[in-house]
Amino acid sequence: MRLPPGSPVPSLRGAMSQTPPFHALSTPRKLSNAELARLLRLDLAPELDAINLYAARLEATEHPLARAVRRHVMDEEREHAALCWALIAQLDPSQAAHAREAVAKLEPLGRGAPDEEVEAAGKGGATAGLPAARGARPRSPGRPRR
Amino acid sequence: MRLPPGSPVPSLRGAMSQTPPFHALSTPRKLSNAELARLLRLDLAPELDAINLYAARLEATEHPLARAVRRHVMDEEREHAALCWALIAQLDPSQAAHAREAVAKLEPLGRGAPDEEVEAAGKGGATAGLPAARGARPRSPGRPRR
Amino acid sequence: MRLPPGSPVPSLRGAMSQTPPFHALSTPRKLSNAELARLLRLDLAPELDAINLYAARLEATEHPLARAVRRHVMDEEREHAALCWALIAQLDPSQAAHAREAVAKLEPLGRGAPDEEVEAAGKGGATAGLPAARGARPRSPGRPRR
Amino acid sequence: MRLPPGSPVPSLRGAMSQTPPFHALSTPRKLSNAELARLLRLDLAPELDAINLYAARLEATEHPLARAVRRHVMDEEREHAALCWALIAQLDPSQAAHAREAVAKLEPLGRGAPDEEVEAAGKGGATAGLPAARGARPRSPGRPRR
Amino acid sequence: MRLPPGSPVPSLRGAMSQTPPFHALSTPRKLSNAELARLLRLDLAPELDAINLYAARLEATEHPLARAVRRHVMDEEREHAALCWALIAQLDPSQAAHAREAVAKLEPLGRGAPDEEVEAAGKGGATAGLPAARGARPRSPGRPRR
Amino acid sequence: MRLPPGSPVPSLRGAMSQTPPFHALSTPRKLSNAELARLLRLDLAPELDAINLYAARLEATEHPLARAVRRHVMDEEREHAALCWALIAQLDPSQAAHAREAVAKLEPLGRGAPDEEVEAAGKGGATAGLPAARGARPRSPGRPRR
Amino acid sequence: MRLPPGSPVPSLRGAMSQTPPFHALSTPRKLSNAELARLLRLDLAPELDAINLYAARLEATEHPLARAVRRHVMDEEREHAALCWALIAQLDPSQAAHAREAVAKLEPLGRGAPDEEVEAAGKGGATAGLPAARGARPRSPGRPRR
Amino acid sequence: MRLPPGSPVPSLRGAMSQTPPFHALSTPRKLSNAELARLLRLDLAPELDAINLYAARLEATEHPLARAVRRHVMDEEREHAALCWALIAQLDPSQAAHAREAVAKLEPLGRGAPDEEVEAAGKGGATAGLPAARGARPRSPGRPRR
Amino acid sequence: MRLPPGSPVPSLRGAMSQTPPFHALSTPRKLSNAELARLLRLDLAPELDAINLYAARLEATEHPLARAVRRHVMDEEREHAALCWALIAQLDPSQAAHAREAVAKLEPLGRGAPDEEVEAAGKGGATAGLPAARGARPRSPGRPRR
Amino acid sequence: MRLPPGSPVPSLRGAMSQTPPFHALSTPRKLSNAELARLLRLDLAPELDAINLYAARLEATEHPLARAVRRHVMDEEREHAALCWALIAQLDPSQAAHAREAVAKLEPLGRGAPDEEVEAAGKGGATAGLPAARGARPRSPGRPRR
Repeated sequence: MRLPPGSPVPSLRGAMSQTPPFHALSTPRKLSNAELARLLRLDLAPELDAINLYAARLEATEHPLARAVRRHVMDEEREHAALCWALIAQLDPSQAAHAREAVAKLEPLGRGAPDEEVEAAGKGGATAGLPAARGARPRSPGRPRR
Repeated sequence: MRLPPGSPVPSLRGAMSQTPPFHALSTPRKLSNAELARLLRLDLAPELDAINLYAARLEATEHPLARAVRRHVMDEEREHAALCWALIAQLDPSQAAHAREAVAKLEPLGRGAPDEEVEAAGKGGATAGLPAARGARPRSPGRPRR
Repeated sequence: MRLPPGSPVPSLRGAMSQTPPFHALSTPRKLSNAELARLLRLDLAPELDAINLYAARLEATEHPLARAVRRHVMDEEREHAALCWALIAQLDPSQAAHAREAVAKLEPLGRGAPDEEVEAAGKGGATAGLPAARGARPRSPGRPRR
Repeated sequence: MRLPPGSPVPSLRGAMSQTPPFHALSTPRKLSNAELARLLRLDLAPELDAINLYAARLEATEHPLARAVRRHVMDEEREHAALCWALIAQLDPSQAAHAREAVAKLEPLGRGAPDEEVEAAGKGGATAGLPAARGARPRSPGRPRR
Repeated sequence: MRLPPGSPVPSLRGAMSQTPPFHALSTPRKLSNAELARLLRLDLAPELDAINLYAARLEATEHPLARAVRRHVMDEEREHAALCWALIAQLDPSQAAHAREAVAKLEPLGRGAPDEEVEAAGKGGATAGLPAARGARPRSPGRPRR
Repeated sequence: MRLPPGSPVPSLRGAMSQTPPFHALSTPRKLSNAELARLLRLDLAPELDAINLYAARLEATEHPLARAVRRHVMDEEREHAALCWALIAQLDPSQAAHAREAVAKLEPLGRGAPDEEVEAAGKGGATAGLPAARGARPRSPGRPRR
Repeated sequence: MRLPPGSPVPSLRGAMSQTPPFHALSTPRKLSNAELARLLRLDLAPELDAINLYAARLEATEHPLARAVRRHVMDEEREHAALCWALIAQLDPSQAAHAREAVAKLEPLGRGAPDEEVEAAGKGGATAGLPAARGARPRSPGRPRR
Repeated sequence: MRLPPGSPVPSLRGAMSQTPPFHALSTPRKLSNAELARLLRLDLAPELDAINLYAARLEATEHPLARAVRRHVMDEEREHAALCWALIAQLDPSQAAHAREAVAKLEPLGRGAPDEEVEAAGKGGATAGLPAARGARPRSPGRPRR
Repeated sequence: MRLPPGSPVPSLRGAMSQTPPFHALSTPRKLSNAELARLLRLDLAPELDAINLYAARLEATEHPLARAVRRHVMDEEREHAALCWALIAQLDPSQAAHAREAVAKLEPLGRGAPDEEVEAAGKGGATAGLPAARGARPRSPGRPRR
Repeated sequence: MRLPPGSPVPSLRGAMSQTPPFHALSTPRKLSNAELARLLRLDLAPELDAINLYAARLEATEHPLARAVRRHVMDEEREHAALCWALIAQLDPSQAAHAREAVAKLEPLGRGAPDEEVEAAGKGGATAGLPAARGARPRSPGRPRR
């Protein structure tokens, strides 16, 4: 099979600049919780990205075994993303509060409610019954304590 | 103020390859829900990244007005991340199920329980009381319906 | 749905080199005002870029809730860009003067006036009535004071 | 002069992937105003970046002629940034409104006023006396008209 | 905590060019087995890379729950890498033969045997008892059949 | 021969940021085995990538000598990938165990068996007859010993 | 307006790794003239690149004000490029000599003269009447004096 | 020789995305002169960059033959840069005029003359005696003729 | 082992944009010899790069088996580079002539002979006894025949 | 002239991260011969790449002077590549031996001879009459002497 003339021709050897291997050398100390939350915010992206990657692979594949393996792996990437988000919420209470607010804001946002109503719905959501959300939404502190 | 001799010298003009501007040209049709979920998985990363960026800016800033502006903006980036995650859960029920399982898995994971117990706790979490999670966890379908 | 044969096939896992997470480690001291202005010049770009990104998302989306969320977020990104520009003008008086001049230059530029007239219009604009622009336009000092 | 042993050694030939030269080939049609605004949002970044670049060059240079040339050029880059921002405000009325609001929000933000007060100050700013801001702040339209 | 003066300052917002989301659009047809093997060769790298990433995270983390989650995830990334390699061996018999030869070559390589002996040991390994390796090592065909 | 009008025109000089040449300067000490395993995980990717590259070259080439040379080289890249994988298995017993499990999991995965059965098959595989796999699968230790 | 089906879809948020902002921190000392020449060689590229960028913008724009602004800015970028080249010639006499030679070489090159004649024409050009070019062309010294 | 502990460790295989090889396929037609000027603006950068690269190599090398070869090559890169600039001036008369103006502007810039005087000196320079600069400086045309 | 405080912390997941896998799709036709030579010019770089990579690995490794494997692989990468260069010389007679000239030029270059003598030595080398170099050095044809 | 609707639109300002200019600062000492060989392996790539670049420029250009200049420059890039390869062979005797072997291997490779015969032909080539190849092929030493 051949491409029609004029198609773009991507044929160069790929970039290989990956995760630096000397991680053992690279951490001068254990992370504070604020730093750990920062790392987790970064780690979520490749997990979500992997879901997309394997979904695309599945779309292009007919080989039954390869399809089965990829579906299995893709599902575990979903689990990784979920665990990562749950850890972020544990380490960053302000994010956890926003997560509760966001669920409550979706309904008024969806029906085009004015900003004030959306905001008010969020405040209600933040104090609703999820176990980790007793008090008021913590203000983002600006300077993480360590 | 000066760097000590021998410090690395980053002084080149930066890369400027940004979001392509011809978005209006670039979509041949409206997105399916599966495609929309893929986009949202990608959109979450820069929002989380922005939280990290502004947190670092805050750490390095004493200027009171700049601090206040950045804390305000950083908090809205947290809201954006939360809205994005909530939308993903609406569009990808399998991810929503994993999100519920993940919360339930944290406890046994944290005390070093064996894999089987962690997995079982997850199954319990997936059927717990969050409104969007009535039935069993949907299998990742492999080929999004459109 | 399928692409016609010969379409380009972008299908590789994406680059993941994001904001370094160890911001807390990375600042040897508080920023001077000149340095703060430099950072703000850099921070404006991703906010403007995010507006473009969400505008493109909106164009491609029919899902009403996703549209509402994205319009809400896009509007806050516009606010972030505006706050950033306002801070730059506070910290860099020369930029503020140019901002006033630019507004005054648009009219003669638009009707193809010669350079001298454009330049003169700018000088008038720089001393016009905006509250923050009392005196003459400060020369760019070349070496920021700290 | 020499670096102390162990300093990082950046010594490879640089990347040269620049602006594609076949711009004359690349535009199937004239831009709509919404697309033009998108382009301008992207064009602002390298102008601001150039200010930073030349400021850094100035800091490192003693050669009087080179200093004078760079200060001259840096000042024109500030003009370019200002013109670009002014054009964005002309083409995107919602951004112009946010620009007015942002100036009004800085004061309450700076003294730590609650979100509601900041928001209210913004609304006042948006209707203040700048010539281009007669009416209410336009809602971001979501789908640019063309 | 602060860096000593003169330390490099990585503080810019990160690159966000990730997996293109329109995978559903991007495959004109199902993959041949040769193409599938090519994709799997590419997919192995990010899985191995993820193992390295999480290993580095573990090294830098004291938070017990975060450690437990990451060890769990890292172990599943090892499983993904192994499944990917096993699929490659199924789809590329020449690679499977080399895999068997490589195990046999390690011993003579380790004791500094001459090339001829290493090569001969490989040939023996290629015909050893692994179920998928009955016949002679297939020559790399050069042009995949489709 | 010519491209039809409107084809993309890739014609810029390429990026040249390659392997830093001062490797002799860059290693403060010999690697631990855990670090060596990390490096090998990274080294596998370019070898697999090279197989893909030369396979694509072969597809596009009719010149008999060039075809013969590339087939020869491609085959040696397969050998390199196999040696690298074999070394990883020697240095990371947990990966070796997963490699054995993966072979055993393929069959139940291929016929769509439930997760528990796949997992159980893996456990059987991990203790099967490969010489390096006597005992139970080692847990990923989390913190490499050095 | 819509793209035909199958068009490439560039829609990801752009890379934002720009000029590092801590230039004030990054220079351990003032530059030597040789180093200054090196910097200027690098600074010329983005100025030339900006000319190309704005030329392409002009081609795609009908909006009269935007066209006028961009033509104005593009012309100043040409001035920046010219100033940069003039400074290079001041700081690197060998480059200045080559610049004079190049003008003289164009004529014989254009009519296909043999290399010896081209070279001889260059030697004549290097000693021709430009004020800064009195003596013989300085040899590239290999090791800049500082 | 060894780096002190804690030094950064650049040890990954480099990026290899170079000039696409299918240039023969990639040009639908011959270039217009305006397009040719755009290409030349891009081609100048790597030639100047190569001068910097070889200058740095010379600094680090004692091997006499390698030094001689590199000095020879570096000098030819200076010639390439000069030829490229001369071609740009031939194809873009506006750039040629700016080149003449720039030489004339350096003197008043160097003694801190006001902008008007610098500008006036430039106008004089543009009409001075260089053979290619008889008439007035051409306005940048905005839309290249083809 | 730990880094001293303040050391740079490279810890992000690596870029994974590798060789596009759809090579089978990407070539509209067989390559001409001129195009093949272009590809070979690109393929030489990663082979040379791999030699450097494995040399650096060897320097950092004490593990005897890993050392032996890498020395073996590095030596084959040298063979690949040599085969690639030999093919280039077969397909590009002008390059082959330059290769012969270069050997002859090294001696006069090394003793600082003037350019004319170096050039003359090259001409002699180009007609010396290597079997493939009977006639005069072919001029670079500018437009490859296909 | 215009692109047909739907063509890709590359219109962003290019990346400008080039060769770091502070080379004078960046070398703690003179290079060993092994390090010099590593640098030369890297320097060969951009020279070969430049040949490709100028060949593509020639293909797209009708302007006689521009064609003549580029052919002249391209030919000098071929000379640079040849000088670089010749220096590598001087500094890395193992590479020189492989270079001789490669020429001898081409013939049996081209007629599909078995690996053993190819290898044997290489051994003959390595001891053939090239002046620099008196003795046996040196083993790659693994650890460069300094």
